[in-house]
Amino acid sequence: MRILVTNDDGIEAEGIKCLAIGLQEIGEVTVIAPDREMSACGHGITVHHPIKVDKFNLFKNINAWSVSGTPADCVKLGVTTILNTRPDIVVSGINRGPNLGTDVLYSGTVSGAIEGIILGIPAIALSLDSFSAVDFSSALRVAQQLCRQMLSKDLAPDTLLNVNIPYTAKEKIKGYKVTKLGERKYINNFEHRKDPRGNDYYWLAGQVIPPEQEDHDLDVVAIKNNYISVTPIHFDLTNYKIIKQVKNWGLEQMSF
Amino acid sequence: MRILVTNDDGIEAEGIKCLAIGLQEIGEVTVIAPDREMSACGHGITVHHPIKVDKFNLFKNINAWSVSGTPADCVKLGVTTILNTRPDIVVSGINRGPNLGTDVLYSGTVSGAIEGIILGIPAIALSLDSFSAVDFSSALRVAQQLCRQMLSKDLAPDTLLNVNIPYTAKEKIKGYKVTKLGERKYINNFEHRKDPRGNDYYWLAGQVIPPEQEDHDLDVVAIKNNYISVTPIHFDLTNYKIIKQVKNWGLEQMSF
Repeated sequence: MRILVTNDDGIEAEGIKCLAIGLQEIGEVTVIAPDREMSACGHGITVHHPIKVDKFNLFKNINAWSVSGTPADCVKLGVTTILNTRPDIVVSGINRGPNLGTDVLYSGTVSGAIEGIILGIPAIALSLDSFSAVDFSSALRVAQQLCRQMLSKDLAPDTLLNVNIPYTAKEKIKGYKVTKLGERKYINNFEHRKDPRGNDYYWLAGQVIPPEQEDHDLDVVAIKNNYISVTPIHFDLTNYKIIKQVKNWGLEQMSF
Repeated sequence: MRILVTNDDGIEAEGIKCLAIGLQEIGEVTVIAPDREMSACGHGITVHHPIKVDKFNLFKNINAWSVSGTPADCVKLGVTTILNTRPDIVVSGINRGPNLGTDVLYSGTVSGAIEGIILGIPAIALSLDSFSAVDFSSALRVAQQLCRQMLSKDLAPDTLLNVNIPYTAKEKIKGYKVTKLGERKYINNFEHRKDPRGNDYYWLAGQVIPPEQEDHDLDVVAIKNNYISVTPIHFDLTNYKIIKQVKNWGLEQMSF
């Protein structure tokens, strides 16, 4: 089995090194990841700059490349150009910090995995629920279990699992929960400051409001209750629910 | 009616100026847009840098700010921090070049609009099907008609229309078509070059493969047939279709 590993914390992050080394137990690992931190880059791609690619010495005999681009660039470039053989799965992470609910839209970790399924390759995005995580062992165990699961199944090529792992002692983790994306709301979004020349600038700040939703099928609730949340994700942004309603406006009969 | 206008081609682009001036017929327009071109930035937000905000002299008495960030930053910062009153609608564009099918994921134009509905404000994203467009009059007419439509309806606050307009003579445009997102596939994704020092680099290139899909309800087909495509978009990436299948894997019964 061929596993393409990427992330958005950058190729020098501890999480990707741990993931790449650990997944060698399961298959042939190649790492193609951004040369620096790209958090919150969303599903950005690099169109107006050239992309530099360098071999990277990550660990022993793991083939690794650093890329001056986003996680989506890494996967697109990797699958179409760098790799001679198509990977069987794309694994993105292990991210420091959660990627839950609405926030997955902003997530570079998830976007690396989404680029996988756009190219027809099943994918997993892995995030630890702590911005200061130093122990990636539980997350790695999850990665190994889920890779084995996915590769033993007859999967649709657009299967992507967005996985969040509680950052707590292994014995406190209650197991897996298959979930839907919940809501992530913030207060105090921006902090206003003045630079030494008196010009205004802002920092995105904001604290997460603890979820009001109580539905145990939501990722935001599952992680709060120490479950590993596993949310299937797709990339079809069509809002089918309101197509009929919009048709009823009579737009199609309107003269332009 | 209060209209917040943004884009991803940057505040100096012709498309946003034309849009802002034209929408003054309908309501009170405020422009908050990136200070430079941010195409293909996806739903990126600026987390690791401060965001600079400057008043911008766009046109007569239109309030305008340029922002050193992405379209999503502009809308988030605008609604939560810069504006004293909440806009009734967010309009993003008019983009030079289409935003169709799978490509909406990469689109800064669409992400500005998505940030609107994340904040509970209905939104429209407008794109012209030409990268060299100089005549924005048809697109502006669409913007005005759709804004009037949307503001006369009792809308769910998460209503977002992704609109693509054929770049052709007005009389050749066949009217509106309410659509779903189709597929956008490319060939020759990357061009490999060497810099003067012999280092490898790549340009994202690639030509769109004409859509094989023939379903007239798809945006990629509608625009090819000279219809204005109007696709309702949402931001819920949960893949509900395969939740049951993933539950059947027995993950929740598995020991961790």
